[in-house]
Amino acid sequence: MSKYSKKIILSEQDIPKQWYNIQADLPEPLEPAFNTRTGKIATKEDLCVIFPEEIVEQEVSRERWIDIPEEVRDIYKIWRPSPLIRARNLEKFLDTPAKIYFKNEGVSPSGSHKSNSAIAQAYYNKKAGTTRIATETGAGQWGSALAMACQMFGIECVIYMVKVSFEQKPYRKSLMHVYGANVFASPSTQTEVGRKVLASDPDCKGSLGIAISEAIEDVLSHNNAKYSLGSVLNHVALHQTIIGLEAKKQMEMVDEYPDIVIACLGGGSNFSGMSFPFIMDKIQGSRPNLRAIAVEPSACPKLSKGVFAYDYGDNSGFTPAFKMYTLGHTFMPSGIHAGGLRYHGASPLVSSIVKHKLAESVVVGQKEVFEAAVTFTKCEGILPAPESAHAIRTAINEALKAKEEGISKTILFNLSGHGHFDLSAYEQYLSGQIQDCNYSQKEVEKALEDLPKVNI
Amino acid sequence: MSKYSKKIILSEQDIPKQWYNIQADLPEPLEPAFNTRTGKIATKEDLCVIFPEEIVEQEVSRERWIDIPEEVRDIYKIWRPSPLIRARNLEKFLDTPAKIYFKNEGVSPSGSHKSNSAIAQAYYNKKAGTTRIATETGAGQWGSALAMACQMFGIECVIYMVKVSFEQKPYRKSLMHVYGANVFASPSTQTEVGRKVLASDPDCKGSLGIAISEAIEDVLSHNNAKYSLGSVLNHVALHQTIIGLEAKKQMEMVDEYPDIVIACLGGGSNFSGMSFPFIMDKIQGSRPNLRAIAVEPSACPKLSKGVFAYDYGDNSGFTPAFKMYTLGHTFMPSGIHAGGLRYHGASPLVSSIVKHKLAESVVVGQKEVFEAAVTFTKCEGILPAPESAHAIRTAINEALKAKEEGISKTILFNLSGHGHFDLSAYEQYLSGQIQDCNYSQKEVEKALEDLPKVNI
Repeated sequence: MSKYSKKIILSEQDIPKQWYNIQADLPEPLEPAFNTRTGKIATKEDLCVIFPEEIVEQEVSRERWIDIPEEVRDIYKIWRPSPLIRARNLEKFLDTPAKIYFKNEGVSPSGSHKSNSAIAQAYYNKKAGTTRIATETGAGQWGSALAMACQMFGIECVIYMVKVSFEQKPYRKSLMHVYGANVFASPSTQTEVGRKVLASDPDCKGSLGIAISEAIEDVLSHNNAKYSLGSVLNHVALHQTIIGLEAKKQMEMVDEYPDIVIACLGGGSNFSGMSFPFIMDKIQGSRPNLRAIAVEPSACPKLSKGVFAYDYGDNSGFTPAFKMYTLGHTFMPSGIHAGGLRYHGASPLVSSIVKHKLAESVVVGQKEVFEAAVTFTKCEGILPAPESAHAIRTAINEALKAKEEGISKTILFNLSGHGHFDLSAYEQYLSGQIQDCNYSQKEVEKALEDLPKVNI
Repeated sequence: MSKYSKKIILSEQDIPKQWYNIQADLPEPLEPAFNTRTGKIATKEDLCVIFPEEIVEQEVSRERWIDIPEEVRDIYKIWRPSPLIRARNLEKFLDTPAKIYFKNEGVSPSGSHKSNSAIAQAYYNKKAGTTRIATETGAGQWGSALAMACQMFGIECVIYMVKVSFEQKPYRKSLMHVYGANVFASPSTQTEVGRKVLASDPDCKGSLGIAISEAIEDVLSHNNAKYSLGSVLNHVALHQTIIGLEAKKQMEMVDEYPDIVIACLGGGSNFSGMSFPFIMDKIQGSRPNLRAIAVEPSACPKLSKGVFAYDYGDNSGFTPAFKMYTLGHTFMPSGIHAGGLRYHGASPLVSSIVKHKLAESVVVGQKEVFEAAVTFTKCEGILPAPESAHAIRTAINEALKAKEEGISKTILFNLSGHGHFDLSAYEQYLSGQIQDCNYSQKEVEKALEDLPKVNI
């Protein structure tokens, strides 16, 4: 690599042919999901009501490598392999001996890493004869990704978008429209659930919990309809490992291996995708000193401040209960400008990894995150999503620590998405209107009282 | 290339080392610019008041190849070489025997091809000791590109943004802010010109003409300040040829050469950049049958419906007069959703090329443009800027013609930018609110009465 090389580029032939399933390498198997309706361990059959069978098989599989279908790889080729970039200008600006690399998942057409799983899920649904997929979306990254994926496979896509985002983020909604999706502001009049909420509160701005309930009702009331989720579940983490697998190949091309791998954590899909292929080496013993850092916003620090317990995946208690780090499913984090990180729990896989001290977590505040985002943009040109900027903040902190200690470190982080739809948040930061939002211990304690009772 | 290959990727080493200057190959030299203030041919000294000397040298140079400085290539590496993509899904959807390739310039951090010249201009200014660059911007593509470029070279950047866009396109303005630029809604209170306009009309929404005048006044009233322009001039076209030069290499990699090269035309920088390296082959005789098509909106068809005459580069008659196709500098096109194409003239180089029948022009309407944009997005996933969608419309038309005629054609178009900041226009199209806007022959005739008197 010449002094000024920036991008490390793979060819389309180098797109991985298999995803990595960390369930094969966990120190102990995941504890089973629990169906609080039946009072029993959730079965595959429970899941098959809303997911196609192959997805359910992936959810519980303990095979280490799972083939990526050629049809999925073909669509990945629209933007994959994504570039790995050496942030030379940022290194220079920080005057650090550390080398900073980042993977740019913002190059996907939907603008974030979410497409990696959306394409795969649409494929398996198509194969299973699904003709309609319903989902919920908050800020809209998952919705855009699924809308594009469904378009590619000719599946009808119905998206229940939390009303406050529907109104405040018209661009993301419009992108879903261009991809041909039907987007409803939730609560909507499309479902019993939505109509009931609207009857008692016509001005209700919605919540992810209501939107999930609407999407599930939609699935159950239509033929050949299935549900699709953009994070938390094992199969989503599986699909996202293509990020870390590519990054490993790219690091190898320049004879590098990271000392530290960093990604932000919402439900866990982004962190899993980047870190699991490296954590595999740590588990298998070849890289015992690797550090994997999940970055959480101070408004929603489930790994750092939550409990490890059974909890629902959604806010309204519809899903099975999973064993995970959680702040309580009824905990409502502050409205920070990183909607993708406002989730009460960490996925069962990430929780297990952290429980076994194979990864660590850090907490960062909103102002320092935007400061890092602006520094990064000025140095490297690329505008990150506020979610991704959490990883940037931590990469900068680690690079500055390396400088203090006078040692070189190789740092790798995932830039999970671009910030083109988040510029009003940047504008607020630049005009001094962004505040740090910390979680309230009291509210968490209150939410933890609502944890489901699970007897396994 | 396998059946499913999509992207043709060059390495950073393959970024061209020289720009192509079509002035070396013109059938006859450009007619000189005319300074209507002095009543004489515009001199290099006239230009050096607002541009650094090396830029002025490039403006008048007739050397065929001009070296790209290493410092410029290093910053190009942030996103260059840009991908060349085979639009296989679009071909399949159209069921055409034509092969459709597109170059994706939307991958630049500022979102469009404008960065190619912005980086170069910032570099030459830095070298010349410029500490402040002022410019105007309408929709904001050029402003974003220059803001980033100035940030990279540590130059203060001042942008006068037409007030109606400043208010309607807050995202582009915010992007410039993140890049550290000062952005003023024009008319502003920063300049004599602006204050005068505001005094007589406090609610004035501005125009490119006023913004140019403000930027020039800013330059003349500050030390070490220069002006920068994002289109029309010869040096801008020169810098943009990196698009076509890369595309040629990429086509060669798959043993292809286009029968038809297509790009939209605003001032001319995008069309020049894509087509000139191919038109070189046509002029030099190796590709006599190449067709180069400049696509104009029906609201502003200067090549197709204008006159070939001396006219000012700006709306207020501040610049020298150039020999070009023009609808008259006082002609005000309808407010279509492709702000980058609302320019009254075609650059002198493009005008000369068309005059000598080395390129042709076509006119397309706004509705069919958005229809093509949505089709393209659904097939290829990538959301184009409305400007770029003019090229897509024409590429689709040519592909359908090839189908009708039953012959294979190789079509290449430039996707000059992404449409992430144009989603409100898409939303309007999808809800049936987009109208075709045709230019008015009467208004053009009126504007042509204002052409400057030039005696050379």
